Parts: sequence; structure tokens; C-alpha cells
Amino acid sequence: MRYVVIMAGGSGTRLWPLSRKGTPKQLLKLIGGTSLLRLAFERAIRVVPPERVLVVTGAAYLDAVAEDLPEVPAANLLGEPEGRDSLNAVAWPAAVLAARDPEAVVAHLTADQLIEPMDAFVTALEEAFAVAEADDRALVTLGVVPTSPHTGYGYLHRGEALDGFPTACAVREFREKPDADTAAAYLASGEYWWNAGMFVWRAATFLEQLAALEPETHARVAELAAHPDRLGAIFPTLRKTSVDFGIMEPVSQGRATGRVAAVALPIDWRDVGGFASLAEVLAADEHGNVVEGLAVARDAADNLVINTTGDHVVALAGVNGMVVVHTPDATLVTTLAGAEAVKSLVAAVSDAAGPEYT
Amino acid sequence: MRYVVIMAGGSGTRLWPLSRKGTPKQLLKLIGGTSLLRLAFERAIRVVPPERVLVVTGAAYLDAVAEDLPEVPAANLLGEPEGRDSLNAVAWPAAVLAARDPEAVVAHLTADQLIEPMDAFVTALEEAFAVAEADDRALVTLGVVPTSPHTGYGYLHRGEALDGFPTACAVREFREKPDADTAAAYLASGEYWWNAGMFVWRAATFLEQLAALEPETHARVAELAAHPDRLGAIFPTLRKTSVDFGIMEPVSQGRATGRVAAVALPIDWRDVGGFASLAEVLAADEHGNVVEGLAVARDAADNLVINTTGDHVVALAGVNGMVVVHTPDATLVTTLAGAEAVKSLVAAVSDAAGPEYT
Repeated sequence: MRYVVIMAGGSGTRLWPLSRKGTPKQLLKLIGGTSLLRLAFERAIRVVPPERVLVVTGAAYLDAVAEDLPEVPAANLLGEPEGRDSLNAVAWPAAVLAARDPEAVVAHLTADQLIEPMDAFVTALEEAFAVAEADDRALVTLGVVPTSPHTGYGYLHRGEALDGFPTACAVREFREKPDADTAAAYLASGEYWWNAGMFVWRAATFLEQLAALEPETHARVAELAAHPDRLGAIFPTLRKTSVDFGIMEPVSQGRATGRVAAVALPIDWRDVGGFASLAEVLAADEHGNVVEGLAVARDAADNLVINTTGDHVVALAGVNGMVVVHTPDATLVTTLAGAEAVKSLVAAVSDAAGPEYT
Repeated sequence: MRYVVIMAGGSGTRLWPLSRKGTPKQLLKLIGGTSLLRLAFERAIRVVPPERVLVVTGAAYLDAVAEDLPEVPAANLLGEPEGRDSLNAVAWPAAVLAARDPEAVVAHLTADQLIEPMDAFVTALEEAFAVAEADDRALVTLGVVPTSPHTGYGYLHRGEALDGFPTACAVREFREKPDADTAAAYLASGEYWWNAGMFVWRAATFLEQLAALEPETHARVAELAAHPDRLGAIFPTLRKTSVDFGIMEPVSQGRATGRVAAVALPIDWRDVGGFASLAEVLAADEHGNVVEGLAVARDAADNLVINTTGDHVVALAGVNGMVVVHTPDATLVTTLAGAEAVKSLVAAVSDAAGPEYT
């Protein structure tokens, strides 16, 4: 049967003070009162019923995830005691599902981006499931069809098409984030897709590759699936590495028995990793101000103002292109152009004011 | 005997959200934790003992004034039920003091500005008292020696010197706020001083002029001094006008028996009516940031950041020349250059968020 695992880890410090150690980005109700996690869930249940959706997240966020996704059974919420990179966020639920259902076919989906239109995503996901079901050696990765020579993503170099599928193809090679010239050449060639970091495979197929390439991790996640009570002892010992470095690249290089395939995701794929990108996806008023919550602006244009409190007013006068974020215990003032600096600001806040503010 | 009346009315909306309907500018502890009112009191007690200092303020601020100036007897705190302009803020305490002490000589001092050095102020105030004591027709006004062609102040045109005093002179004429060319001519001539809106006279002398020029006000403040319990009935009926329009200008034009004199105030006289002027009088760090309260700034210069709360951090990144003021129920974000617009912003905040925020 098909399953979807939503990966919802990460602290998202670039959205501080909205995102906090206790409230990562995916749980923030950023988009019309809906979280990115909930949007990912709504995509997932177009393909599988809610009881076959799992979420892997930080242990500290389990209650918040349960509140945001009441349809998901408690047994499907996996809380990592600490972040151990993406391979383990994939391997643990794969082992859990393989133990529950030896025929499990699993999509591992991210919840970091805003994805439009949903129908195109669902169509691609269905195709990826079909590829994995048709080929018990396939590790299928989703490849976003590039719309710009983006230097912030990894790329997939596409190989030959797979017969019988509308977009599926082999993957020749994974490429790291390119420089601008290389990215432009990739875009012009039409042979490259962005590596979405989303995967579909039979759990058994993935675990075979894991056993070959990362045998220690394989043994430990199998033990963990059989003995959930050993989570605290086992999880922190797992070797930190990414799915791409640990599995996808070696398999694409013929170093295990699997075959890497890719399916096209012809979507508008927007990272909302920072305030500048968040401002782009929210609706602005006639002055270009994006205002969420109790705020007043005079002679002010093109600002992003977010006030999460109900008993405090934020007032702007004579300012343009600013980011002002007010939460119960912290206020951020920066510019849309400079909002990338927030990540380093958070460290300074922790030092100067105390870690409780970050 | 000598008395000092400190005038501490006004709502100071240009310092919102620090200044509020319930906390006017003079009561804010803006300067190293000390209020402008307290600074005015400390000047006053260089000349008279605390029990001969009176404060006239809004009735709503009486408790706060009493807390800020515990040395002042409760009977010396006069609370106006509503603002009725400066003539009444002068006439009421003058009538009260005349009833207490027919020989009272009274200095009516403002608390709006930062004044340095204190010694020069005290010397001038002593001279003004001496002029008023020597001449029972004298209405003495304090004239700040101009340091720039300021267009925001009224000016005094000085007449001939008064014998026997270091700086005292007659006043030929009061001039309204000038245009830039006129202000430059005033400064170049050396014949003009800024009208400080501070006065020294025998209470009896002032009340004689009041009786001649504003007889109805005279009768009512006399009744009020005799019957303090009638405050609520009498005060709102007083005709609203300023000391300059009601008394000083007509007397300077020979329309009553008094004589207007002026004494030089050779001081640095700084209005802290808005955030730009407040930023000038507070100490900046090596990046030009003036920071009061819990705040963190990265890649930020020449900002004014005031945080009056102890349990909330304000963080700035990549911004220059901003004003950020955080209070328990309101946050202001504007520029130092545009901070004059705060007054109109306050009306917008009242409309949009509610009068309780203003």
C-alpha cells in the first residue's frame, strides 16, 4: 500500500521571531492561517488516506503537530530526539513502515515550500508511486522543472526516458548547487531539474540500499522499528548524513543494486524560508503593504508587517520596504532586502538577551 | 517670598507610544531615568525650597506627579480638569499664591525642554526674581539667547537695558514665529531673544494686569483660590488663551499698567518634543545607535531604539536612521527624519485600533 511521510523538522531561524526553537517554520500558520505542514498534509491526502500519512518531526514539536493534524493517528507521528540529518529522517519511518507492511511504497515529502498548483503535484506524485510500484529496484526522486537559473538548489541531470510513463526518466548524475554560469547552462540545456529532496520508493527497496551503503544505520533503524522504546538510546547514535550523499548519489553511481529515476514536478515551487519570500506569497494591499494582525501604516509602502498578538498595536509611519514582526516576547525590525541577515541576528539575540528569546 | 510654579501639562503625542493620554511627555523618564519634570524641579530647588514649588498639571497626572516629586506638598499640586491654555495655567497658581502670601513673587517655569548648564539657568532666574522684586510693575520674561535662526520659536525684541542688572532689559515687542529670512535677520541683529514662555513677577502685579485685561478670568481664578472645591465648575469656563496673547503683548503695547522686562537665558535649550530631538540628547554607542532597554542591533547604525518593557526583546538588523519604540501595548516604527509624522499617526491608530492604544 501507499504511504506518505511528511518531513517537518528544522528550526527555521530565518523566520525568527515567528519561528522559534519551540515552533519551527512548518508549523507557523503563515498562509491564510494555514501552516506549511497542513498544506503538505492536504497534498498527501489527495493520494493516500490520513491514516497512511506519517510525520517525522522534532520530539519537541509532536504536540503541536498533533494539534495541527488531528486526522493523523498518534502512532504515525515520529518525534526525533535530535536532528540527525535527512537520511535518518527517511530511514526511520521507512523501517517503521516496512515492519508494518512489507509491501509499503512510501513517498517522503518536504513541507518547506509553497507548491502551486496542487493538481500538478498530485499527478507527479501518482506517477512516482507508479514507477516505484513497477520497478522494485527504483529509487524515484522528484525533479522540479526549473523556471530560473537558481543557484540555491541542487540539480538532477536527466538520462533516458522510462518507457510507459509520461515524464519519468533515469538520473545520470546529482549536481551540487551550481554557480550562476553553470545554472544558466543547465537551464538552457533542458536536461536538468531541481532536486526537490522528495523521494518515492518501496520501503524494502530503500532499506536494501541502506543495508548495502550504510549498514550500521540500517541495523539501528531496524532495531528501532522493532523496539520503539529504545528511541532515546538509538537515535542519537545514527550517523548524520543526507539522503543524497548517503544513498542517492552512490546508487546513481552504480554502487548498489538500485536504480535512480526522476519524475517531473511542473510546479511553482516557492521557498518561504525567509521574510522576503514570505512577503511574495502573501497578499498585499494597494500600497504594497502585507499586513497580518493589528497594525496601522501611514505614508508607508511595500512593508511586511506581522503582529501575532491581539492586544498590541504596531504602527508604521514613513517607512518603505521594511519587515516588522511583533510576537509576545520579541520584535524584529529589518528590511525586506536585508532579511537574510536574520539568521545571524538570532545568535546575537540569544547572546545578548538570552536563549529564551530565540 | 519666592515661589516656583512648574507648568507640566500637555499630552505630547509626538512621543507616542511613550507619551500617552495618561503619561504626558514631562513625566516620562527619558533622560537617564529622570523625567523632564524632575529636572525642572531640580532647577527650581536651587532657588526655592521644595515646599515653595508648585506644579500645575492635568488632573489625571496628579498621582504620577506626586510619585515623581515626593518632596512637593500635596497642597502644591494643582490639577487642571481640562487644558485651558497657558494663561489659566499661570493665573490659577498665581491666584492661589497671592491668597497664601500677598508678597509672593512667582516664577512660572516650563518643563518641556532640556536645559544646560543648570548654573546659567539659576543665575538668570535669580536675576529675574530680583527684577520683579525691585519693580512692582514688572512682568519679567526669560529670553533664551539664540544660537541659530530658529523658525519654531517666538522672539522678543529687546529694548533698553535696565540699570543695575547684568542682563535685564525692556521688551519692545513680541514677535510670532518668523520665516527663515526674518529669523536670520533677528539673529544677525543681536536684538532678539527666543521667547522661552517662562515668567517671573509678583503675583499681585500679574493679577492686576489680569484684572485689567481679562477681568472675567481674574474674578474666576480669585474665586477658585478661595473655594478650591469649585474647581470642576469654574475651570472649564475659563477663556482659553495664552499668556502672551492675553497679558504680555497687551502690556508691552501699553494697554495696562505693567512693564515687560526680559532677562537673558544663556543656555543650551533643547526641545525634546519628538524622537529626532530626543535622539540628539541621549548618548549613542559607537555605531550611532541610541538604545534604551532590552534591544539588539546588527549591521545597524544611527537608530533610536527604546524598549520600555523588561520581558520582550527588540532586534534590529540592517537598518539605519530608524526609530523603534516598544511599549507594553504599542510599537512604533518610523524614521528619525520622518518622526514628526507621529502626531498624525496617533489619530490613525486611535481610529484603527482603538483609543485605548493612544
